[in-house]
Amino acid sequence: MSTTPRILVWNEYRHEKQHAAVAAVYPDGIHAAIAAPLRAAGFPVRTATLDEPEHGLTESALAETDVLIWWGHMAHDEVDDAVVARVQQRVLAGMGLVVLHSGHFSKLFKRLMGTSCDLKWREADERERLWVVAPGHPIAAGLGEYFELPREEMYGEFFDVPAPDELVFVSWFQGGEVFRSGLCYSRGAGRIFYFRPGHETYPTYYDANVQRVIANAARWAAPTGGPVLAFGNRAPLEKLTLT
Amino acid sequence: MSTTPRILVWNEYRHEKQHAAVAAVYPDGIHAAIAAPLRAAGFPVRTATLDEPEHGLTESALAETDVLIWWGHMAHDEVDDAVVARVQQRVLAGMGLVVLHSGHFSKLFKRLMGTSCDLKWREADERERLWVVAPGHPIAAGLGEYFELPREEMYGEFFDVPAPDELVFVSWFQGGEVFRSGLCYSRGAGRIFYFRPGHETYPTYYDANVQRVIANAARWAAPTGGPVLAFGNRAPLEKLTLT
Amino acid sequence: MSTTPRILVWNEYRHEKQHAAVAAVYPDGIHAAIAAPLRAAGFPVRTATLDEPEHGLTESALAETDVLIWWGHMAHDEVDDAVVARVQQRVLAGMGLVVLHSGHFSKLFKRLMGTSCDLKWREADERERLWVVAPGHPIAAGLGEYFELPREEMYGEFFDVPAPDELVFVSWFQGGEVFRSGLCYSRGAGRIFYFRPGHETYPTYYDANVQRVIANAARWAAPTGGPVLAFGNRAPLEKLTLT
Amino acid sequence: MSTTPRILVWNEYRHEKQHAAVAAVYPDGIHAAIAAPLRAAGFPVRTATLDEPEHGLTESALAETDVLIWWGHMAHDEVDDAVVARVQQRVLAGMGLVVLHSGHFSKLFKRLMGTSCDLKWREADERERLWVVAPGHPIAAGLGEYFELPREEMYGEFFDVPAPDELVFVSWFQGGEVFRSGLCYSRGAGRIFYFRPGHETYPTYYDANVQRVIANAARWAAPTGGPVLAFGNRAPLEKLTLT
Repeated sequence: MSTTPRILVWNEYRHEKQHAAVAAVYPDGIHAAIAAPLRAAGFPVRTATLDEPEHGLTESALAETDVLIWWGHMAHDEVDDAVVARVQQRVLAGMGLVVLHSGHFSKLFKRLMGTSCDLKWREADERERLWVVAPGHPIAAGLGEYFELPREEMYGEFFDVPAPDELVFVSWFQGGEVFRSGLCYSRGAGRIFYFRPGHETYPTYYDANVQRVIANAARWAAPTGGPVLAFGNRAPLEKLTLT
Repeated sequence: MSTTPRILVWNEYRHEKQHAAVAAVYPDGIHAAIAAPLRAAGFPVRTATLDEPEHGLTESALAETDVLIWWGHMAHDEVDDAVVARVQQRVLAGMGLVVLHSGHFSKLFKRLMGTSCDLKWREADERERLWVVAPGHPIAAGLGEYFELPREEMYGEFFDVPAPDELVFVSWFQGGEVFRSGLCYSRGAGRIFYFRPGHETYPTYYDANVQRVIANAARWAAPTGGPVLAFGNRAPLEKLTLT
Repeated sequence: MSTTPRILVWNEYRHEKQHAAVAAVYPDGIHAAIAAPLRAAGFPVRTATLDEPEHGLTESALAETDVLIWWGHMAHDEVDDAVVARVQQRVLAGMGLVVLHSGHFSKLFKRLMGTSCDLKWREADERERLWVVAPGHPIAAGLGEYFELPREEMYGEFFDVPAPDELVFVSWFQGGEVFRSGLCYSRGAGRIFYFRPGHETYPTYYDANVQRVIANAARWAAPTGGPVLAFGNRAPLEKLTLT
Repeated sequence: MSTTPRILVWNEYRHEKQHAAVAAVYPDGIHAAIAAPLRAAGFPVRTATLDEPEHGLTESALAETDVLIWWGHMAHDEVDDAVVARVQQRVLAGMGLVVLHSGHFSKLFKRLMGTSCDLKWREADERERLWVVAPGHPIAAGLGEYFELPREEMYGEFFDVPAPDELVFVSWFQGGEVFRSGLCYSRGAGRIFYFRPGHETYPTYYDANVQRVIANAARWAAPTGGPVLAFGNRAPLEKLTLT
């Protein structure tokens, strides 16, 4: 499908309202900061947040979404199980999903991964350097061999997720850790990209490389228009007579 | 860990009590038929069934289990969610899991995969031929290039599971379908093998090749004694001064 | 890179000149039959054949190629080693490669895979049914759950290639075999797709589904514009003082 | 196959004879340092070096070898192409291969990978920390979450090898780089492990964790006794009459 994917940026949108330090960085919410460069790149973009009815993830909203981008952190438990199940079904049916940073611990991502999605972490204003280990992958388009974020939260291995279908980035942290920080998965007909950076107290989503990765990921994760999944009892395709 | 893994064979054990055709094939239950050749091969084997307290999957039972083998079909919904969560945690902590045939639709397997685990099927006494596509994999030890089951239920693609870490078998079916029928996954510190054959009305678990695969899978899935998983807030390992 | 990839279709072009049965199916050569629908789909397409100087694979020809499509069979040994090395280098630097059918035994593919690339085969006018096992993959765009070729050469497992990064198709054959028939690989910055169908005596390359797969594969394999590969001795990026 | 694999440790054995600094660390050769702990662990171990006839890799030597361990650096080009082809064939037929450190640039490894196997490097007495990213893998048995080497040569990404079937270790380096440093591959019926550490001027092969990894890798890579690979023209397995 060659049309530009329609993006829905979902943000928990609590830190920005409760913590002045976060509001100072993202005055209109993290979702606005993620949406702006995508709009500038030509994507049709809407946003939704936790406190909207059905978290803004109604059947009709999802029906108009090709790629969902997810940021959450302090209120994972407030996301309704029925909405999580609905989004999961949409992903399996082909909707793309880009999970950012602390979204690793969202109900949605844990449910799609089947693991704890736990990790090590530290908030210490550390430098992160993301190395490209899949230079031919479309999510690395337009990047150099690595890019740096001067200050970020550390996430360290072991990251309890399934081994990715494709590993695009590995992060180096100043304090001595590494992290698999750009991970591609296929689930059902859907494609999922997990991207590590984006702690709420840092201006990470204003970084040009981070913005480029998110845009690349949205294109990569967009529905491909393949076969509709079908299951159940089937008549044979061949009426074979064995010898 | 070089010791022989302790196996727990779990069986729903309903078909055998309700359907004469199944009881005729597996008079002591499918679990007994699976356990016998494993015992003969030297594994310590216990069994557990759905209608036991906590389905026989108590904390203490799991604590003494290195590899759990799972057969279920008609009563997936009766497996208690708390028990499913307990078993999932054990798998992530390193216990091996071998899921057989209709276990693809168990709560446990669906939860570990994160997908619908749905497929196409047909009961028509068809020939299945399982081809080895990973000849160096330990689960293929002792096999020929393929083996046949004269009559089995058909399972056909698309099988809605994550792409496996390693694909060991692909099945050919008489009616025109194929199926990825031997799938290896790592989840947390645990290893999972899904093996397709084993419909309850056929004597599949008396087949020498099937028995060999299950024994190989138990050895492969056994805990390896690697690092204990640890997560959470961490002090830096380096106190670096950047220039 | 959003521009349409420039395709070079390479064909050995010997069968068509030596065997009337093949000339009857492909009077202008297999390359012409592959090129026509790609041109119709809007790709800039050139062709090259074995008996041209440097097999038509000069430095300048490759410099203008984003995706190379390869068909060869009876004259693999006549392909010059220096040209093979040149093409391999281009693939590692990012050029896409689509290897068709008997190209599995080309010097180029064997060199890129590192294995024998051997398989089982039979010419017996058999039905082949290709099942999609990666419904979200862009190479499956526009297809149904499977497609059939009424008569093809059989290729059977074990196919001695590395496990693919992504497995898109699995073939069922009338005579009892299966084959992993659509395989994605990344090598260096380049992307490689192996696609099984296309025996020279059958009109396979006139099949609409086959044409669609080849066009999809060309788009998928096109250079992505990622980081230029760089190697060698490097100064440290951090001048760290360890504690 | 439950018997203990027979190991052949191959070493170029030139640095030790030409450079006093290396001889001071490995007075009996790197091969001796690698072999000793393997013997202590109960493996039958022989050694071979470049300057022996046929580099010590005769048909009969390979016939008695289950796992070959390879260290080379300054004389890769002196390894005879015919010997390389012979070893490659043995690997595809099922012999295990463990390639150490600078062996990444050996003819053998490059031929098996199909890529340049190039990387970034620096000799600067840097700390390396190897993180386990596959805690359930048998090659991580007995390790902690990470282990450190106080001084090593740096190897940095992009490492131009195929994405591994399983990624076991990722290294952190003091100077700001990361490296995929423990890589599992299957090729034919053989299993290959690449392990990064081991520069000739450092006492790396006396490190207990490094020794453990090499022993684990030898067990993992040992032949599994699966089907013998067979190829070529085949009669159909089914004489099917299609409807």
